[in-house]
Amino acid sequence: MKTKSILLKNRPQGKPSVSDFEFITEDKNLEPSSGEILLETQFVSVDPYLRGRMSDAKSYVAPLELNKPVQSGVVAKVIASKNENFKEGDYVSGLLNWKTSQLSSGEGLLKVDGAKAPLSAYLGILGMTGLTAYCGLTEIGKPVAGETLVVSGAAGAVGSVVGQIGKILGLHVIGIAGTDEKVDMLKSKFGFDAGINYKTTEDINAEISKLAPYGVDIYFDNVGGPISDAVLFNINRFARIIICGAISVYNNTEIPKSISVQPFLVKNSALMQGFIVSNYAEKFPEAMKELSTWLSEGKLTYTETVVNGFDNIPDAFIGLFEGKNKGKMIVEI
Amino acid sequence: MKTKSILLKNRPQGKPSVSDFEFITEDKNLEPSSGEILLETQFVSVDPYLRGRMSDAKSYVAPLELNKPVQSGVVAKVIASKNENFKEGDYVSGLLNWKTSQLSSGEGLLKVDGAKAPLSAYLGILGMTGLTAYCGLTEIGKPVAGETLVVSGAAGAVGSVVGQIGKILGLHVIGIAGTDEKVDMLKSKFGFDAGINYKTTEDINAEISKLAPYGVDIYFDNVGGPISDAVLFNINRFARIIICGAISVYNNTEIPKSISVQPFLVKNSALMQGFIVSNYAEKFPEAMKELSTWLSEGKLTYTETVVNGFDNIPDAFIGLFEGKNKGKMIVEI
Repeated sequence: MKTKSILLKNRPQGKPSVSDFEFITEDKNLEPSSGEILLETQFVSVDPYLRGRMSDAKSYVAPLELNKPVQSGVVAKVIASKNENFKEGDYVSGLLNWKTSQLSSGEGLLKVDGAKAPLSAYLGILGMTGLTAYCGLTEIGKPVAGETLVVSGAAGAVGSVVGQIGKILGLHVIGIAGTDEKVDMLKSKFGFDAGINYKTTEDINAEISKLAPYGVDIYFDNVGGPISDAVLFNINRFARIIICGAISVYNNTEIPKSISVQPFLVKNSALMQGFIVSNYAEKFPEAMKELSTWLSEGKLTYTETVVNGFDNIPDAFIGLFEGKNKGKMIVEI
Repeated sequence: MKTKSILLKNRPQGKPSVSDFEFITEDKNLEPSSGEILLETQFVSVDPYLRGRMSDAKSYVAPLELNKPVQSGVVAKVIASKNENFKEGDYVSGLLNWKTSQLSSGEGLLKVDGAKAPLSAYLGILGMTGLTAYCGLTEIGKPVAGETLVVSGAAGAVGSVVGQIGKILGLHVIGIAGTDEKVDMLKSKFGFDAGINYKTTEDINAEISKLAPYGVDIYFDNVGGPISDAVLFNINRFARIIICGAISVYNNTEIPKSISVQPFLVKNSALMQGFIVSNYAEKFPEAMKELSTWLSEGKLTYTETVVNGFDNIPDAFIGLFEGKNKGKMIVEI
């Protein structure tokens, strides 16, 4: 049985490149021992946060090991089982290796139901993406109907869900994205009230002032950098800023500089909270219930960019930093 | 009856100067109407936050009006009363004008007792200073015994109280100040575990790492700027950063730049909260009770820099930005 794997060969300097990864193929029989299951990879999620795991800087998760398979969210099919919790033909999602086949103890894996939603959705709107959007917006953002929400990286996987949840909760929602096509999609597909193309807008600060005449109460920040600086000029008293990501600086090799946020925070009694979804596990059941309901009611929709083929996982990952995805970036094996 | 007043003549550009203020003397009888009291100013508090009120930028409090008396915390004696809540000879504290005498409705004024603590203490450790230290540290910092607290502006009015409360609550406390004399005082007088002179320490980041081997859990930030950047490199997962002031940039005429805080916050699931004590009024009774008890038990001590004479109020205020104060800066009339 041939198994392909993708290992982390080098810790990327700046933007990752395909040469940071190593492709290997092994030919050996994988047979589950007692308690194990054999999995065949169906869908692989590539996400910006992985860039952080590829560096060995101190972070909230241990760095990926060199010369070991990269790990990310995966949906896989159970091919053989010696674990009573799983049977052949089940589908599971969880943090797994970039391998076409692998053995697992089943720990940390969730069974998912392809009849209720497409399997890939469990890597997106019904997976980490949806949980991140829901928990970040509700737990830190504490939205109150009528308030104004700005979302950066708004056409991305998390951003597009954040904006839609914002609309469901009665917020005025403004999204920031990097192409006119993405901005159109925010409004036409995801129901945002307004969008800003940060690449063609000369004065983002002024544009936010115009689109958010009552100021910004909640800022869901996926990008950091100059876009976030512009938002700061528009925050209201008691604003809540959810720092979910900083994709604009993930590839920087020097410590990035920006305006000092402290005077803005103290003037406005505002909150800035670094957010990682795994800290909110106790909210996941509630979040999954809400997200599934909204999805089945047609109140939530999502976009996937699907890349085909195991060998293209690194390319898909690198594409995240080039804005190649609309919504969730998924690799179908 | 001669009454002196100090008005705000110009909105300061950069560092305030005496010429931004106007001194006037009026000679007219002040007679309380029904419900009013006549007050004679005893002590005037000058505080860094006043710099913000002198500008007309959007902020949490309305800007001071030009050609009107400056306002700050004042302890005054009731000279005549037509208000049943106050009698002649009472002492009160509250937000009042920079005038030697003034009429007041009594609204917002608290009676203070010179027998329980020196009158000037009601502008400091038993006034806004103490409340700021207590509420900021406990409500946002949520200290847990054994954690590490870093305080910047540590020899200042608020900072020295924050560090002492930190010690009372079982924290490992490191203070940052600007002279060796102040750093010595942090340890000898206020019981801090360690101090850093930011002016003579080449690598503040490395020095914090050394003094806080388990990382920084709480940072009480009075200064902003490069000192705060250095602390960020040392924060722990779930760190809480209380942004109480940004004295290092109050006089900047351009928007200051510093390192991007967002990646540090997201990596550490850390919190940064702008703090203004007036948002925590519901905690004041508890805070006053604790502060008074600790003061009477000798667990809390404080330093005042007392400047004499009404005419010297602007000089005393400007001195705050030159590090001329140790602890609370007070003007005795």
